[in-house]
Amino acid sequence: MCQLLGLNCATPTDATFSFTGFTQRGGGTDHHADGWGIAFFEGKGLRLFVDHQSAAQSPIAQFLTHYPLKSTNIIAHVRKATEGAVSLENAHPFTRELWGHHWVFAHNGDLKNYHPNLHSHFQPVGNTDSERAFCWLMQELAKSHAQLPTVAELTLTLQELIPQIRAYGTFNFLLSHGGALWAHCSTQLYYLVRQYPFSQATLMDQDWTVNFAELNQVGDRAAVVVTTPLTKNEVWTRFEPNELKVFVDGLPL
Amino acid sequence: MCQLLGLNCATPTDATFSFTGFTQRGGGTDHHADGWGIAFFEGKGLRLFVDHQSAAQSPIAQFLTHYPLKSTNIIAHVRKATEGAVSLENAHPFTRELWGHHWVFAHNGDLKNYHPNLHSHFQPVGNTDSERAFCWLMQELAKSHAQLPTVAELTLTLQELIPQIRAYGTFNFLLSHGGALWAHCSTQLYYLVRQYPFSQATLMDQDWTVNFAELNQVGDRAAVVVTTPLTKNEVWTRFEPNELKVFVDGLPL
Repeated sequence: MCQLLGLNCATPTDATFSFTGFTQRGGGTDHHADGWGIAFFEGKGLRLFVDHQSAAQSPIAQFLTHYPLKSTNIIAHVRKATEGAVSLENAHPFTRELWGHHWVFAHNGDLKNYHPNLHSHFQPVGNTDSERAFCWLMQELAKSHAQLPTVAELTLTLQELIPQIRAYGTFNFLLSHGGALWAHCSTQLYYLVRQYPFSQATLMDQDWTVNFAELNQVGDRAAVVVTTPLTKNEVWTRFEPNELKVFVDGLPL
Repeated sequence: MCQLLGLNCATPTDATFSFTGFTQRGGGTDHHADGWGIAFFEGKGLRLFVDHQSAAQSPIAQFLTHYPLKSTNIIAHVRKATEGAVSLENAHPFTRELWGHHWVFAHNGDLKNYHPNLHSHFQPVGNTDSERAFCWLMQELAKSHAQLPTVAELTLTLQELIPQIRAYGTFNFLLSHGGALWAHCSTQLYYLVRQYPFSQATLMDQDWTVNFAELNQVGDRAAVVVTTPLTKNEVWTRFEPNELKVFVDGLPL
């Protein structure tokens, strides 16, 4: 199993606080040491950092915890390999282009004997169940819509597609095209919304407290989605099993 | 106009020496300050770093000049915007997946009124002539071959496709799928092969001399392709106009 972290924000937000706590789970306070990755959308542009070293030890992860990249949609992942070797091509998040937009996907779970019919141009580069699921989702989205539909329409299509994958096992995932963040819970996922009046938060995995009221302005707002709560003194809402939520501008729709 | 750097190596090689000299041209010793990027293949896996800051000033470029990522195929680019805004989605190299392999492309030149018929699933995310040319190449390669062909077959197909783009302007480019590096020269491109017995090299753009004999072993070999020679005391071979070369294991085929 792996761990997921997603941020969807009303204004470009730096994720160093959450990412710092999260990377500790990649071989530091937890055992997800088989690679990590993080994707930042900046408008339509995308920065993707992936590594097959443990996040707690990776020089690139270290660099990013000190380099505040501002983004409205962020997806991060630390990996505990269940299927597929520990190699760069198997590190999440995965990315593909569809309708002239980058799409980013990360998965936590285990899909047993999952070999979907990938008959279109989305083919896996590595050999994980996760990338096969992403390629199948992209293929089916492409078949369902000729061009980029609204977030609401995409959510409806995803609600039809997800049960067909979930039949194979645990399928917690995060998905974004830069305009929204979809989060699906099979077994475990939490979220919260940080907004005015902002409060104080202390990381679970490291001794670091931040007063968001000092760092943010009215109008700033961020939804944070994560496998296990990142902070001690904030209220995290647990997803229902088989729940799909979509976040836009820092709020669940 | 922009500048290109490509490395194709027999064994995984760290490019910090060449990349350090090259990044100086991104706003340091030269005026290509509208973004930069570098892609490293590690097996089938890919690391892609892009930025819309100047390479000479970018913290990520700084980090990479001190962090020796080893790769067999590397493509880097510093940008002087001619078409398309200075934004992350317009930073080269561009990447797409085809036949279950990552493909990476960077372009130097200017294609006038180039709006190819992009009728398949490869659609540009940004608004540069370069990304349109890459999408068209991917589309036409996908139409020409049902699955990944040999390097020789791909070279033949590219030789048929390139003149159709070149008709629109200057089209120096680098292309790789991790198994070979294709380099096409419209107007200006140089290359050299570093191999046993290795010699000494001094950067043009910075005071740094390396003795490759101390750093390499028999069997190591790297072809370096670049817009303008990177070093003072090595012999660079100039491409002929309209010449396409393909490099495998550090040698031109």
